Amino acid sequence: MTEYTTEPIDAALREALMSLSTATLTTQLYYRGYRNTFMVGVRPLNSKAHFVAPAYTLRYIPAREDLAVPEVWKDRSYPQRKAIEAAPEGSVLVIDSRGETRVGAAGDILLQRLQKRGVAGVVVDGALRDTPILAAMDFPVYCTAAAAPPSIVALYSPDLQVPVGCGGVAVIPGDVLVGDGEGVVVIPRAIAEEVAAAAVDQEGYERFVQAKVAEGRSIFGIYPASEESRREYEKERDS
Amino acid sequence: MTEYTTEPIDAALREALMSLSTATLTTQLYYRGYRNTFMVGVRPLNSKAHFVAPAYTLRYIPAREDLAVPEVWKDRSYPQRKAIEAAPEGSVLVIDSRGETRVGAAGDILLQRLQKRGVAGVVVDGALRDTPILAAMDFPVYCTAAAAPPSIVALYSPDLQVPVGCGGVAVIPGDVLVGDGEGVVVIPRAIAEEVAAAAVDQEGYERFVQAKVAEGRSIFGIYPASEESRREYEKERDS
Amino acid sequence: MTEYTTEPIDAALREALMSLSTATLTTQLYYRGYRNTFMVGVRPLNSKAHFVAPAYTLRYIPAREDLAVPEVWKDRSYPQRKAIEAAPEGSVLVIDSRGETRVGAAGDILLQRLQKRGVAGVVVDGALRDTPILAAMDFPVYCTAAAAPPSIVALYSPDLQVPVGCGGVAVIPGDVLVGDGEGVVVIPRAIAEEVAAAAVDQEGYERFVQAKVAEGRSIFGIYPASEESRREYEKERDS
Amino acid sequence: MTEYTTEPIDAALREALMSLSTATLTTQLYYRGYRNTFMVGVRPLNSKAHFVAPAYTLRYIPAREDLAVPEVWKDRSYPQRKAIEAAPEGSVLVIDSRGETRVGAAGDILLQRLQKRGVAGVVVDGALRDTPILAAMDFPVYCTAAAAPPSIVALYSPDLQVPVGCGGVAVIPGDVLVGDGEGVVVIPRAIAEEVAAAAVDQEGYERFVQAKVAEGRSIFGIYPASEESRREYEKERDS
Amino acid sequence: MTEYTTEPIDAALREALMSLSTATLTTQLYYRGYRNTFMVGVRPLNSKAHFVAPAYTLRYIPAREDLAVPEVWKDRSYPQRKAIEAAPEGSVLVIDSRGETRVGAAGDILLQRLQKRGVAGVVVDGALRDTPILAAMDFPVYCTAAAAPPSIVALYSPDLQVPVGCGGVAVIPGDVLVGDGEGVVVIPRAIAEEVAAAAVDQEGYERFVQAKVAEGRSIFGIYPASEESRREYEKERDS
Amino acid sequence: MTEYTTEPIDAALREALMSLSTATLTTQLYYRGYRNTFMVGVRPLNSKAHFVAPAYTLRYIPAREDLAVPEVWKDRSYPQRKAIEAAPEGSVLVIDSRGETRVGAAGDILLQRLQKRGVAGVVVDGALRDTPILAAMDFPVYCTAAAAPPSIVALYSPDLQVPVGCGGVAVIPGDVLVGDGEGVVVIPRAIAEEVAAAAVDQEGYERFVQAKVAEGRSIFGIYPASEESRREYEKERDS
Repeated sequence: MTEYTTEPIDAALREALMSLSTATLTTQLYYRGYRNTFMVGVRPLNSKAHFVAPAYTLRYIPAREDLAVPEVWKDRSYPQRKAIEAAPEGSVLVIDSRGETRVGAAGDILLQRLQKRGVAGVVVDGALRDTPILAAMDFPVYCTAAAAPPSIVALYSPDLQVPVGCGGVAVIPGDVLVGDGEGVVVIPRAIAEEVAAAAVDQEGYERFVQAKVAEGRSIFGIYPASEESRREYEKERDS
Repeated sequence: MTEYTTEPIDAALREALMSLSTATLTTQLYYRGYRNTFMVGVRPLNSKAHFVAPAYTLRYIPAREDLAVPEVWKDRSYPQRKAIEAAPEGSVLVIDSRGETRVGAAGDILLQRLQKRGVAGVVVDGALRDTPILAAMDFPVYCTAAAAPPSIVALYSPDLQVPVGCGGVAVIPGDVLVGDGEGVVVIPRAIAEEVAAAAVDQEGYERFVQAKVAEGRSIFGIYPASEESRREYEKERDS
Repeated sequence: MTEYTTEPIDAALREALMSLSTATLTTQLYYRGYRNTFMVGVRPLNSKAHFVAPAYTLRYIPAREDLAVPEVWKDRSYPQRKAIEAAPEGSVLVIDSRGETRVGAAGDILLQRLQKRGVAGVVVDGALRDTPILAAMDFPVYCTAAAAPPSIVALYSPDLQVPVGCGGVAVIPGDVLVGDGEGVVVIPRAIAEEVAAAAVDQEGYERFVQAKVAEGRSIFGIYPASEESRREYEKERDS
Repeated sequence: MTEYTTEPIDAALREALMSLSTATLTTQLYYRGYRNTFMVGVRPLNSKAHFVAPAYTLRYIPAREDLAVPEVWKDRSYPQRKAIEAAPEGSVLVIDSRGETRVGAAGDILLQRLQKRGVAGVVVDGALRDTPILAAMDFPVYCTAAAAPPSIVALYSPDLQVPVGCGGVAVIPGDVLVGDGEGVVVIPRAIAEEVAAAAVDQEGYERFVQAKVAEGRSIFGIYPASEESRREYEKERDS
Repeated sequence: MTEYTTEPIDAALREALMSLSTATLTTQLYYRGYRNTFMVGVRPLNSKAHFVAPAYTLRYIPAREDLAVPEVWKDRSYPQRKAIEAAPEGSVLVIDSRGETRVGAAGDILLQRLQKRGVAGVVVDGALRDTPILAAMDFPVYCTAAAAPPSIVALYSPDLQVPVGCGGVAVIPGDVLVGDGEGVVVIPRAIAEEVAAAAVDQEGYERFVQAKVAEGRSIFGIYPASEESRREYEKERDS
Repeated sequence: MTEYTTEPIDAALREALMSLSTATLTTQLYYRGYRNTFMVGVRPLNSKAHFVAPAYTLRYIPAREDLAVPEVWKDRSYPQRKAIEAAPEGSVLVIDSRGETRVGAAGDILLQRLQKRGVAGVVVDGALRDTPILAAMDFPVYCTAAAAPPSIVALYSPDLQVPVGCGGVAVIPGDVLVGDGEGVVVIPRAIAEEVAAAAVDQEGYERFVQAKVAEGRSIFGIYPASEESRREYEKERDS
């Protein structure tokens, strides 16, 4: 069985990514041939949600009455419970719940413990429960729906730290996830540095464009950049 | 034709249920074998929405041009109109609109009248209209969408106070519904007392767990409760 | 090829429509035989969104790798870009994106330019990108979802100012669109005056009803209007 | 409670309707202002399925563990069972199963009994079970899916002979249903004669058009009918 | 990592299950508390499809351009390819493709090899490719759709022989699957004997009921069985 | 307005493409960077359907009561009717109906006329009507559903021969479409020759693989081709 990295992200990279929007990052990923990196329908519970973190993954399959029983909650090796104590500080817990919206994949106590342990956030492509409480926490939480019933009514967790799908996107443990007010992008670990550097440049240029648009300039000739507008930007930037 | 109860809920039971979350209540229903009690996709228009009430039901079927005509609005026996004056004080109007999101099942004037009459809230598994006004009312309203067109463009109401489906869940007139910031749970009338009592105990224990988690304790051994943690909780509670 | 009107709306008509809700307007359209005029699932990003404007349309089809390439962004005749500089002041840009929620049909810079140019708003039956920024703009924006990736990952624009579908509704360039906190209604240009006049009368009567309901009166006999209640209203109105 | 007609259809009307396609009948209904009369997604299990019959209706809501229990099968008043012995000879059993595809609304034994009793067919907007056996029966069966599990796993039947929705269409008990190889149309009882007569004329003309098209004639001028083509048809028909 | 059984099923058990319908088996599973055992929407390509076999599982997640590349097809350890040579004789290959209908999870050459190797069938909750060829093979194949593009356009396989979801149902490697003309049921390995025995008895009784229904008897009193009808059946059976 | 080619396809190219499956063609398109070329959910009505033809396109938008009226059928310039007489011999009529399944985009008389005129087939990403008759014609017809009501109940056609979407795929007039028993692939006109040539080679090799698999050989080393297996194939092919 493959062991996936749980290494933290380099601090400078993390800081750069925290300054960048998922819109810019998906553009840079597209330029590098990646067309499917943004989770569809996975939204922040709280509009201030923002995080950069390596993925720690939890997988669900549909529940069955002999497997998904209340007793699993007492089993410290049951992946949904083990994840809460094992997800590394600084990681984001990514839950593949196959789009399930009839039950919550996790609730307030588990997320309060994750927050206390220094985990960076939780991302799930289905519902969470206790969402009024989660929305009020200063903790980045992304999901597709709210549902009160406990997970085992419809979900069973067979394993941790395996590649999963979430919001229609592949997530390999250790991938770099960035979440902002729009949603969550998955950046393959190996290209995170390169993507971040190009995105920093793109956002610098776009701030220049936004200033010009605010002054009443047409987008033609400056967005996308022409050679002239690029020179103009660089001159302003470097002055 | 069966006559369903329109009896109010006992005041003490109502008070107990008002203190409990739909998350806790669905957990207790699950322990009693009820797996399908939370309405999927039915959300409060206003995050402060909160109610406990017996169900008074209204049923819709798809509209047909010979049945769903503006004249029905003048007919005091047309179920959608009769419901507005007949739903008992303290009940919640539950509308089975079969998930219809192209039209509003009801709008501001009807809901203002319901509120004035002391009805506890409105729940519909489809769209409502005038939602900007409804969202600003101090009245619990739950729905799946907003749509401006009047109901008869797509819906016709054949009857009142019959068992219905709403959000994928059975609702029998007289069932106890609880709505909070997450959504709506349906509790069979006969077990409401028992479920409430067990849920009060569960929430007491969970507040103890949350305090421990806030202090940095692991969930292992306390969530779910072990014999030791339960003793510890009871000692603290009773001291 | 048909040339569609880009004439502004008469100022008095615009003012009348700005005072009317989409709920009232769809009711009047229904009375005139129009059953399908409200965009399903198209919601304001910002609850204060409100506009009245003639439609200027942009059409998307699914992307293909030989057509939807970054180079199109530099082409001033590419419809998605041409629209930004060509949509008339006072018009609303209506984007048919076929419900696509994996990419944003447009983002912050394009909408900032539209706002600067005096365009009245943007309506799309799919996702937009940079939605946290768009939601904070004082500019009416309606969509069905948020998605960070750029449009060309999934969409290609073949033309401008042709009849389109949006939210399940036909939009002919020049049609009068009204957006409020509930959503967007499309009024055929030829009947906009008539619909507005009837809607003004309807809302006048409904304010009367709301006052009576606030005083505790039943809806029976006043909602819908009876001959008596209509006389009572007219007397109060004219006094 | 309204009592709906269970009167058989007049034999001549039945014979006329048996000669007509659902395509022609929905066209005639559209000409009379009925836009929503064909069940969406409800398909014959067997391509030879064909029937004309008044509707006898059965309604389902979502199951709940205290209601939908195996014991109901022994209760002769449980609507799903009562329907099997009560649906009149010559009627079609129309089951509103709210689109449920996880369980079968009924299976082979119940349908064999209906066939034996002279019922004309079964229509359901969800799954049936034992479909390989049903498909081989010489009995018209229409559904949207096949599912092996018994109905009570997900459905509970509260009543019989009430207005229902089926495939997105209103069905009032006693309405005239026609099923062919395409699907099922619902004709309001009161206009069935008129619709049938107009449809007979339409199909007569269309056979004339088909003969001309087979000879190589353009559709222009004959489809739809012009005054000239109509005269030509009438001359041929009456000769 | 758990090792799951790849033991063949006992020959007598297999023979018993081959005589039983998925309708009867899901009924017996329901009686034992299992409500979610039939794959929703997974249909035989060929109406003669029929198999009983232990599950050998293959898992897919969404594709990503750095992972799902044509080179993986040359890698003998890539799970989608390894499965073709590793699935035991007599097992059924169960593919969790998360409902993907844009690409085929596998095609004719892979399935021809599986058939040659004595594998019992293939089940996938998404599309297959080369379906006209697959439908003509004397090999049980179940899927939800047909799609020509190769799997790696949208899917990537991370592992084999792990618990998966398929058609909304949990499948643990080694579970006993039965497929007939209706679809596929999953029987937990531990209870397969017991379920089969009870189902054999049920089908015996139901054949008795069908004979009585064919003679014109009402279902009341015989379906479900009464004590009298059961005695009558047993007498006939044992005579 | 762009004029798109209506040139027939070269006879040799057409013959080559008629020998190739959509599975092979989508593989070759994928190798050239095209990931989205196969129409999702668009299926042949008749399993023998097979065609190669350039696209002639017809576009629909949602109906509106002032536009989609029976009178349009008499208008020889109404695109849905004009298409029937204008689609070139040898072309395939591709109808963008935006997935509409409540009405038929066209019916038997129109398709009989197209067949008579030598049109190669019809493809629609929604329903057709008179499908029992269409299925019996010796004419390739592809759709997603069957629905009896006439098109104008829900659809209005604004134009012909513009780029459209169909089954989630871009179709530019003149693109080469290939339909087989699986579905329909769209090949950009400019690369049709190249794709066909590569696909012919691929199918030649795959027949070799199928023969080896039939003899019991493993897929490893031959599928995909290794240098050795390729040499072996070429030797057999050329001998």
